[in-house]
Amino acid sequence: MRNLTEQFNFILEMDKLKAIYRRTTVKDDNNRQENSAEHSWHIALAAQVLQHYAVEPVAIDRVVNMLLIHDVVEIDAGDTFAFDEQHILDGQLDKELEAAERLFGLLPEEQANTMRELWLEFEQAESNDARFAKAMDRILPLVQNMANNGGSWAHHKVKKDQVLERNLYLKESAPKLWDYVCDQIGLATDKGWLSEE
Amino acid sequence: MRNLTEQFNFILEMDKLKAIYRRTTVKDDNNRQENSAEHSWHIALAAQVLQHYAVEPVAIDRVVNMLLIHDVVEIDAGDTFAFDEQHILDGQLDKELEAAERLFGLLPEEQANTMRELWLEFEQAESNDARFAKAMDRILPLVQNMANNGGSWAHHKVKKDQVLERNLYLKESAPKLWDYVCDQIGLATDKGWLSEE
Repeated sequence: MRNLTEQFNFILEMDKLKAIYRRTTVKDDNNRQENSAEHSWHIALAAQVLQHYAVEPVAIDRVVNMLLIHDVVEIDAGDTFAFDEQHILDGQLDKELEAAERLFGLLPEEQANTMRELWLEFEQAESNDARFAKAMDRILPLVQNMANNGGSWAHHKVKKDQVLERNLYLKESAPKLWDYVCDQIGLATDKGWLSEE
Repeated sequence: MRNLTEQFNFILEMDKLKAIYRRTTVKDDNNRQENSAEHSWHIALAAQVLQHYAVEPVAIDRVVNMLLIHDVVEIDAGDTFAFDEQHILDGQLDKELEAAERLFGLLPEEQANTMRELWLEFEQAESNDARFAKAMDRILPLVQNMANNGGSWAHHKVKKDQVLERNLYLKESAPKLWDYVCDQIGLATDKGWLSEE
């Protein structure tokens, strides 16, 4: 019974991720900002659909699980914009490690450890599964921005090279998707949604 | 390349689930209505956390995949309230079958078939995996309403027996969770969040 109480406390605490807003907007909902809970759903589903583009073996169920929890630390640490300055991003990691301690720590110990390790694996981006998961986290905002006149890129004056660098995970883990991304970034630059420098 | 275009069309179309609003509200975000995309994320994660309460063998990765797609037909068919009158719910199934044809049909044929079958398995609720997935879809709104002074139950004057009946999936697939649900429903009735008749 104690386990169950802890598990429901964790599940309820997760509700707060629905109140963490990102820079990406939802075109079909009056361009309101997207929250990190619905974003997590979307990339977990995208990973399912795109799994066959991974050139190294990935365990898709682990990738999906990683994506379901990859952003929950934002409940305590907040969301940063991918293209914020480096010193802002640097401070973020410590906050996220603390958040992972507290949030996953709400669960019974064994589950807490499993989830914390899975989250850390995603953050470290060294395993095949984590790199493919990161690739999914990168490609979806690109697809959303391309369908929305440049979306958050155009709004925040993001540079072409920043987006290329951010999508590098795709180059090795899913080269066909990388080719697609390069084409799209070229197109976005031609349209003026991304700046050349 | 044709496959990739189809897959991205599907992924983009899925964005629309973020604009489908449910009766449940998000307590920590000014009690705004919850959308079906973030709800799908939340129950997929809840299924991970609660998987060990399933008394019959379930393949948790299939359960998670079902939950990720269980509501996407609402993009075309809209959301119904669980406690709407029966004639409204009856008409809904045909709309959802049509929606499944169109939406999953955006994908390359093999993927379309796999996803359509998985969605239908959830709807039919005959397999262990589908019944446990349904149970997750039922228990989470209960947990949310209990943490929010009765939430959508109180607002829509829902009856105790309606909630008991709706949660019956738990009775066989996860009896410990069923016991918990019965306790919570009793408590909600005492507090006047659910009506006796």
